[in-house]
Amino acid sequence: MGQLNANIVAVGDELLVGQVVDTNSSYLAAELTRMGVTVSYSLTVSDDLEVIQSAMVDGMDRCGLTLVTGGLGPTPDDLTREAAAALAGSSLTVNPKILNSLKDHFKTLGRTVPRGSEQVARVPGGFEILPNSKGTAPGLWHKGQNGSVVVLLPGVPHEMKAIFSDHVIPRIMQIKGRTEIVQRTLKAAGIGETVLQAEIESINHLLEPALRIAYLPGAYGVRVRLTISGRNAGERIDAAEQCIRAKLGTVIFGQDDDTLESVLGEMLRIRGMTIAVAESCTGGMVLNQLTNVSGSSRYVLGGVIAYSNQVKQHQLNVDADTLRQFGAVSEPAAVQMAEGVRACLGSDIGLSVTGIAGPSGGTADKPVGLVWIGYSDVHESWAVKHQFGLDRDRNKQKSVVAALNLVRHSLLKHSGHEQETE
Amino acid sequence: MGQLNANIVAVGDELLVGQVVDTNSSYLAAELTRMGVTVSYSLTVSDDLEVIQSAMVDGMDRCGLTLVTGGLGPTPDDLTREAAAALAGSSLTVNPKILNSLKDHFKTLGRTVPRGSEQVARVPGGFEILPNSKGTAPGLWHKGQNGSVVVLLPGVPHEMKAIFSDHVIPRIMQIKGRTEIVQRTLKAAGIGETVLQAEIESINHLLEPALRIAYLPGAYGVRVRLTISGRNAGERIDAAEQCIRAKLGTVIFGQDDDTLESVLGEMLRIRGMTIAVAESCTGGMVLNQLTNVSGSSRYVLGGVIAYSNQVKQHQLNVDADTLRQFGAVSEPAAVQMAEGVRACLGSDIGLSVTGIAGPSGGTADKPVGLVWIGYSDVHESWAVKHQFGLDRDRNKQKSVVAALNLVRHSLLKHSGHEQETE
Repeated sequence: MGQLNANIVAVGDELLVGQVVDTNSSYLAAELTRMGVTVSYSLTVSDDLEVIQSAMVDGMDRCGLTLVTGGLGPTPDDLTREAAAALAGSSLTVNPKILNSLKDHFKTLGRTVPRGSEQVARVPGGFEILPNSKGTAPGLWHKGQNGSVVVLLPGVPHEMKAIFSDHVIPRIMQIKGRTEIVQRTLKAAGIGETVLQAEIESINHLLEPALRIAYLPGAYGVRVRLTISGRNAGERIDAAEQCIRAKLGTVIFGQDDDTLESVLGEMLRIRGMTIAVAESCTGGMVLNQLTNVSGSSRYVLGGVIAYSNQVKQHQLNVDADTLRQFGAVSEPAAVQMAEGVRACLGSDIGLSVTGIAGPSGGTADKPVGLVWIGYSDVHESWAVKHQFGLDRDRNKQKSVVAALNLVRHSLLKHSGHEQETE
Repeated sequence: MGQLNANIVAVGDELLVGQVVDTNSSYLAAELTRMGVTVSYSLTVSDDLEVIQSAMVDGMDRCGLTLVTGGLGPTPDDLTREAAAALAGSSLTVNPKILNSLKDHFKTLGRTVPRGSEQVARVPGGFEILPNSKGTAPGLWHKGQNGSVVVLLPGVPHEMKAIFSDHVIPRIMQIKGRTEIVQRTLKAAGIGETVLQAEIESINHLLEPALRIAYLPGAYGVRVRLTISGRNAGERIDAAEQCIRAKLGTVIFGQDDDTLESVLGEMLRIRGMTIAVAESCTGGMVLNQLTNVSGSSRYVLGGVIAYSNQVKQHQLNVDADTLRQFGAVSEPAAVQMAEGVRACLGSDIGLSVTGIAGPSGGTADKPVGLVWIGYSDVHESWAVKHQFGLDRDRNKQKSVVAALNLVRHSLLKHSGHEQETE
């Protein structure tokens, strides 16, 4: 078949009142994309028999594959099974095998089958059963007269994922045949989306026309997603990645599951170096991010959150005169905070952040969003200035990215890898 | 008009390949539901001009309100603006006012407008501009010939939310007319969803049958959402709230936009007290949370993040013998950390967290998820033990909630308000 288009239907009032964020659809979208199936659209509908049925009919008209999640539970508002029977022009009958496994399931829990739960054993005619290794409601598979397939999956994420991996993926691969589609996401920090895009567009002639590039800005930098399909997709994406990395250099900090903190952590671990952080306006967010990596206690000694000037003086040995003359948000204060936390905690690297996160506290000289980031190691101490925007949360996030990225660049420089492309 | 139906269209290939989970749609669904607007369906479509246009046309046919998020950025794959012009049978023209504010925006950042960015100043004819206080791309509002409204919002969540709150909500309330639907969300900490539900069900006979109650567990406690519609909805929800608060007491820490850190901050501010925190396993997350409140510098002095035992000894004066005999995750270590940070930073209250966040580092004696929280003030020092689960992120979150909630209860106790219901 080769080209296969899919649509995803999420069923549930709880999604349409905004009570639950639908993560199933994006999981299925990612899995389908990985398999080379194009997801044309994704729809969320209420627990309404006719609406569910009509979404299935539309889906089967438009796409070769329709994945429906939710509405397979035991309560009266679970109507996907009924809608499926109407779609297939069949009725629901109790499947003895499912009923027995249901009884076994509750027996293991030391309980009898709760009233209503046997609903999940009712199967619409014309549907094949996809066993559920993690729960009671099975998945269901139906091939329509036009060859289009509809698959019903429970809404509970871990049950949905189990059935999808165990039974749906192998069946889709059979329908589809293996086409090679390869995706890779490069992650950049310290560069805006527009500039990044211009840089990559300037080497457009070096990249093959079939390469698709998407730019995805986020709180923790910009992601560049590369997609190539067809023959030798793996080698071709390697070539594209090499060109882009050669152009962008150390702006790219990692790929796919890498995070700035995991990459920096690995660099510190390899070098056998430790870090300590003095934070003012970020209030612990830099250290929180650094220590989100399991095993980070090997290279993070800790730090001092110095919100008040007294703490800056007494815990970090920042000079009272400096604070008086230049203020807490200043180059010399940032440098002394970095030096102070390194000296007090005995780390190889001292990092500091001091700024005005906002929304209050800004002045004409020192507006909201002004942030100094300080760095200190055995060789040198210095600080760099940033001017971010007006939003407190964003200013904290941007300060964290800038701080972690600054240490990464400093480590690269000292290793003579500033121009490395790997 | 009274009854108003809405649909939500999320635009973006990144959503259909599963790279980004769409949180905008559930945010909008929740807000619309709160306003008494029924969300009929929610659709995610790709960055395709015709598909976006057709989603808008369908939406306006079926519902009085269509909210479109995404595709308003400056890059060539941002096509929502073009689709809107096609829908309205108009064309795009540069709006000088938006262009100027764009230039101002980049000027503040000390930069010129990057090439391509001026795209966001192009406005489709027939659309009104909804200013964006958080970014460059404005929202857009259009009323079709059938009276149905389509609203375009940027996909960046904090920008989308700002425009929605500032400009869309007031306009929807005008269209809709005020039907009395009142919602109130009570926020609880230190209690599980099931126990909370059982407590409220035990006073069911005191609550009116028309009251709808939803239980929404989250990382930062459980929210109890009350909904009442019809006559005197405001007074009736007050009565329901009073009953529930009388039953639950200080388990309820606030309502609606309150957060644990804003409530605690206000308590400290009123009492003129200061706090300092010593964190181990939470790695700065407690302080980060505390300092998310603007103006928190008035009561947060700062803290020490003591990941290593040396830092615990030297910066917090934790006894080396204590660490040797009981370990860093122990009652005496937690108490000494709280006392140490209070003494060293000179705060009224010292708070400490030490535990094993996991996934590694657990032992038979001290399994992953074991967390000690220490407290110290002028009257007393003590620590409490928690046993959380296996997930690192959740353990950090739960520790933060437990730590902030512990200080809140201690302040209530000292004020003799432990049984207060206000």
